[in-house]
Order: sequence, then C-alpha cells, then structure tokens
Amino acid sequence: EDCKKQEIANSTDPYSTDPPRHPALIVNSLKPFNGEPPPALLTDNYITPSALFFKRNHFPVPQVDPSKYRLQIEGLLGGTISLTLEELKSRFPKHTVTATLQCAGNRRSDMHKAKQVKGLNWGVAAISNATWSGARLRDVLYHYGFDTEVTAKARHVQFEGLDLDVTGTSYGASIPLNKAVSEEGDVLLAYEMNGEDLPKDHGYPVRVIVPGTVGARNVKWLGKIIVSEEESQSHWQQNDYKGFPPGTDWDTVDYKSAPAIQELPVQSAITQPADGSIVDSNMEEVTVKGYAWSGGGREVVRVDVSVDGGKTWHVAEFQNSEEGQKPELSPPPGQAWAWKLWEITIPFPEGAQELELVCKAVDSSYNSQPDTVLPIWNLRGVLNNSWHRVKVKVN
Amino acid sequence: EDCKKQEIANSTDPYSTDPPRHPALIVNSLKPFNGEPPPALLTDNYITPSALFFKRNHFPVPQVDPSKYRLQIEGLLGGTISLTLEELKSRFPKHTVTATLQCAGNRRSDMHKAKQVKGLNWGVAAISNATWSGARLRDVLYHYGFDTEVTAKARHVQFEGLDLDVTGTSYGASIPLNKAVSEEGDVLLAYEMNGEDLPKDHGYPVRVIVPGTVGARNVKWLGKIIVSEEESQSHWQQNDYKGFPPGTDWDTVDYKSAPAIQELPVQSAITQPADGSIVDSNMEEVTVKGYAWSGGGREVVRVDVSVDGGKTWHVAEFQNSEEGQKPELSPPPGQAWAWKLWEITIPFPEGAQELELVCKAVDSSYNSQPDTVLPIWNLRGVLNNSWHRVKVKVN
Ligand SMILES: [Mo]
Ligand SMILES: [Mo]
Repeated sequence: EDCKKQEIANSTDPYSTDPPRHPALIVNSLKPFNGEPPPALLTDNYITPSALFFKRNHFPVPQVDPSKYRLQIEGLLGGTISLTLEELKSRFPKHTVTATLQCAGNRRSDMHKAKQVKGLNWGVAAISNATWSGARLRDVLYHYGFDTEVTAKARHVQFEGLDLDVTGTSYGASIPLNKAVSEEGDVLLAYEMNGEDLPKDHGYPVRVIVPGTVGARNVKWLGKIIVSEEESQSHWQQNDYKGFPPGTDWDTVDYKSAPAIQELPVQSAITQPADGSIVDSNMEEVTVKGYAWSGGGREVVRVDVSVDGGKTWHVAEFQNSEEGQKPELSPPPGQAWAWKLWEITIPFPEGAQELELVCKAVDSSYNSQPDTVLPIWNLRGVLNNSWHRVKVKVN
Repeated sequence: EDCKKQEIANSTDPYSTDPPRHPALIVNSLKPFNGEPPPALLTDNYITPSALFFKRNHFPVPQVDPSKYRLQIEGLLGGTISLTLEELKSRFPKHTVTATLQCAGNRRSDMHKAKQVKGLNWGVAAISNATWSGARLRDVLYHYGFDTEVTAKARHVQFEGLDLDVTGTSYGASIPLNKAVSEEGDVLLAYEMNGEDLPKDHGYPVRVIVPGTVGARNVKWLGKIIVSEEESQSHWQQNDYKGFPPGTDWDTVDYKSAPAIQELPVQSAITQPADGSIVDSNMEEVTVKGYAWSGGGREVVRVDVSVDGGKTWHVAEFQNSEEGQKPELSPPPGQAWAWKLWEITIPFPEGAQELELVCKAVDSSYNSQPDTVLPIWNLRGVLNNSWHRVKVKVN
C-alpha cells in the first residue's frame, strides 16, 4: 500500500531481498537499513504503526522459511532443544505486552552537534511503541528443564540472531538471567507485532522482546538461546552499546571498564513543533507535544515543559493511551513498559522573538534528565537523555 | 563511651527519655532529634558506626519493654496476628542485608540556598550504611497465611510505628506489595543493626528495612503491619515525602498530584574537602572523597569528578568495602543496596585561585544526576540529587 520496493542495484547485493519500507521513514543508512519516522508523525499514535516503527538493522534482513525455522536452546540440563515455529506457538500460552523500544543511539544527532561521535545520526524518533505477542521466555525455559540446579551457575541468557555479517558471524546479545526468568519481567519470544506476524524488518518469524531494556538486546530473527554463566561475547555486548565516560576517546577506551547497557535511563523529547519552525506571534501561546519513557519498567510520573530555556516550568498533560478512553490505571510498579505521550499549551512572553522549548521527564524512582549533553557525552553517542531543547521563532 | 546524656529540661518533657547521642553529630533539630555526622567522618567507614548513623526522628523515642512488645499483623485471611519479639526471632530465619538508608531531605540545605524550602536543613550526610539483621517480611507474611487470594486485592503493605505525635497518632508509611513479598526485595523486620540489638534511635526493638527505598518508609519502633488495598493514609505517605514540580508553591500544591517517594534516584556527594576549605597550591593536586548510591537496588557503576566546575571529568576509584580486601563481586542485578565510597586525586591547573569541585554518579540503568538544583526544586526540598559542588581556595 504505502510502501514501495527500493531500487536494487544488482542481484548479488545481499540487501536485494530486504523488504519494502514506508517512504515517510527518514533513512539514516540504507544498507543495512536504519530509519526513523518523522517526529511529528511519531506521536500521532500511542501504538506506532509497524510500517512507521523505527528500524534498526545491523545486516541484511535474513530470509526465513517459517516451515524450516528452528529455535535452538542451549545450556539447559537436557541438552540442546530444537523448536519449530508451530511448537513455539502451540505449546506455550500467548502473552501480549505493550512495550516501547528505544535504540541506545536515540537523539545521537544532538550529542554529535555538541561534540563529534561515531554512529548513525538518529534524531528523536529512534523510539516507538507496539503491542507484542508471543511465548514468555520463562515459560519456555522452565518447560525445557530450567531449574535451580542450572540457576546456581547461570547468570545470563544469550541470544543469537539469524542475521549475519560478511564473515558469517551472527548478531548477538544477552540479558541478565533474573530478568529473563522473572514473572514480572515479561520477556517474550514474540511472533506478533500489533496483532500480525512480525514484519520482516522487525525479526520475522521470532524476536526477543525485553521490556524496559535497550533495543539492542531485543534480538530479531532469533536463532539461538543460550543459558550461560557468561554474557554474550559478541561485539555488541562487549564493546559496543556501553556508556563510556565523557573523558574517554578512541585512543583511551577500555571496553571492559563499562557495563553493557541494559535498562535505559528516563527519557523525553519534543516532537512538535520542529526545531527552527515559526510560531505566529498573534497566537500568544504555543502547543508542545512529545513522548516520555523510562527503562526498567519505571513509569513516567511527570513531564515538565519550558518555553524560556528552562527558567520556568509547566506540567504537561498525558494523553489517553487510546483516543476517547479514560486514562488507564497505572501498571504494577516496575512493569510500566510503554511510553506516555504528552501535550501542553503555554502562553509565551509578549514581544519574545525566539523561544527555547525544553522538556524533561521524571520517573517513578524520581530520576530526572540531566540539563546538558556534554557531561554525558560519550564517544559512541549513546544514552543521550539530556533535556530536549527546540528553538522556534516568533513571527 | 563517646556518648553523653543530653541536658533534660524537666521530667514532663516527652523527650526526656530520649537516648544519649554521639556528641559529633550535627544537630538539625533537638526535639524531635535529627542529626547527621560530619561529612568527613561519614566516609571514614564503609559500614557507618551506629552512633554516627544519621538519626531522623519525627517524635519522642518510644520506650519499649521487649518482654511486652507485640507486633500486630492485619489484613491476612486468618485475622489479626500478634507476635512477640522472641517469636519473631525464633520462628523465622535470620537474614542479613547491608543497606544504605537515605533521608528524602538529604542535601536539602543546597536546595534551600538556591530557593527557600521548608524542612530540616540537612547537609550531605543524611545518608548512612549499616548491616541489618532480622526476619524477612515475606517469610512472616507467607507464614501467617499470605497467599494469592489475598494478593488479588492487596497492593500495599502499611507500617505503623509506636512513636506518637501529641494527638496520639503514630508515624506511618507503606510500600508496594510486590516489593514487600518479592524474593529479591530483601525487606526485613530488623532487630539488629551492625550485629547488635537495634539502638533506641534506630527503632528498638524492631524496624522495617526496605532496601533501595527512601528512609521514610523504613518505619522504626514497628507496632503494626497492615496488608491492604490502599497506601498508608498517613500524612507522611499522602502529603509529605512527595516530589512536587518546580512551579508548585504552598498556595497551589495538590497533594494527590504526585506519587509517594519510594525508590530514590541516583545520588553522590563530596565529603572531602569541605566547602570553603583551602588547599595548598604547592600540592598541585587535590584529593576528593565521597559516596555514591542509587535507589531500587541499582548499582553505581561510575562516579565522575571535576575540578573545573564540570568542564572536564575524571573517573573516581571505588574503595574496597573492607580495608585490605579485594573488591567484592557485584551483587545480583537489582540488589545493590549499599553505597560505594570513592576517591580520586586530580592535578589542578597552575595558577588556579579557586576550584569548583563537582561529582556526579551513574547507575546501572545509566541514570545520571541533573546538573543544577533549580529545575528539580520543590517546596519541601526533597530529592536533591543535582551535581554536588564544593568550592575550595588555592593558597
Ligand atoms: Mo540500538
Ligand atoms: Mo527521611
């Protein structure tokens, strides 16, 4: 429908079988495909339509025949388990979770502007919210013999994707065992997104959904699960997707010195108006919209918005999660996996020629966002959750 | 030994039976007693000696005869339970946890300096670390009939102290049920602190220890536990110990608008050198010491220190938790209940006449501290976790 097939250079291109993408996506990299929706579109929907959901691929999208798909599970007492897609769907209760995923590099472009970093130049929309359905990872692990005898040594659950780099190495990541098997962790082996089979770009036929945890651990095109004493030894777990100190550069970086990113910190951003846009001085007020979310299932409890660069603050209103419905009750503590969309209309000072709009969120542990980006700068440009600032002209 | 009895005005004074206190404590209020250790003493010990542990009392210290002590438990299916101290000690396994407690008002004085707030003028030492032993709350609740039938309605566990205000109302607070009964939550009905009976100021004979949670919920002189659908209706749960927005003043405050503080945000402070002290210019370097901690069991993974007001940053070294020992392995994710002490020696710029020392911590969810205090200002002066700044003169 709204999607169109990209031009394909030649048939030996490993990306030639990548799926079509929505033309509205802002492309940060074509091969591998990395794209985000325009900010103003992002917050039109509490549930992001799958075609507009940000796409972060490391390699070509693997082509998986569902009838030949096998999920391997290693590290349990009974030896390696091999599971068909049908078995995964039929043997375990289908569990549905609404969860926001965010790329560690979301808002990297603002960090890059302050001081150069290496990475895809994401704007504020490398974050999206969807409904995911699948088997609970804990149900599957317990079914195939996970028990306390295993737990005594195991500390991590590793995931390997079916997506491969040019040397044949698969994308890989791991999460702590206690997140993987906890009843409240809601970790899924998901086969549906927004009520349909997972789209190819989002991991068809099976991906891991680790609510509250950085996108990078939500491994797509899942091929293998390994219960282990060790973290994944992959590049993305050991070297990349870590938060290094602001004084560390590429000459001094010690990859072992920082922990792998798992839960993300509290975040928010303005999606409307756009930076550099013009507001009508006759309006005497400006409507600001955006999103807010925090990792680890911590609920966002407040969003503060300023039109004067952070000197004075106004509390934004949360939008109902579904148009016309009453606000939902808060989820249980530690299980707030989904973002909140917010909106506020603020009068601006008479005669103002420029406004600096700012937002910052507070989560249920009363963590807040740092004021500025340089003190959290890091060479890979990850974890930018400094106040989001947008300048608009009054005309 | 090092303690001395305070002068007592007269015997009708309800505070006349308060215990003696260590003379080194900085007293913020005498009746009720509220005191903190000098910052430079605070970080001399990984485990804070009980006499130096900050003391935060709301009322006179109740005098409890251990042989007459009864702990009431309400809200379970079997009706009210009444438990003697001996029963609590003998019926349940003794569990020991090293946990840091922090008052919501820690570092209030710096918030007050920026803009007036109402509350005790705590410095940086309304935080301390101790070893607590007692029965697990979950063991006690399950023993007396807590089960899923109760869970279906219950959401909170309320605590009432034996300390009373002038009208006879007891201090009270509550915590979410899932924290109270989770295996990893480590909530204790503690009867020992640092290997001895709880001191009178710290809740003798029994207090609640809720690791990772604001001091205010760690109810002392525990008289009653109530499993309930509702939060505690106490003043301290409903109105006080909440984080209101920076634009809210006493005329506009809506107590219902903010959630009760439970988990605290990431925190750190400098304990040496003291603000306003003088460092020798011939030294050409300055040694900075302090603590760092985060709520919710999130481990502090890094502390950054600056000698130039935050322009450049250096990574501090964590001290071993016990002198001469190897650093302990990290606790399981989500169970890092104890602070980390840190230290760093940093050369300062030649010719500098004043240094602005700054520290900020990063926790395992990569939350960090906000740069400045005014954007997190709130009328009660709680939750000040902005960068700690200390000015020293070079001479
Ligand atoms: Mo990512
Ligand atoms: Mo407190």
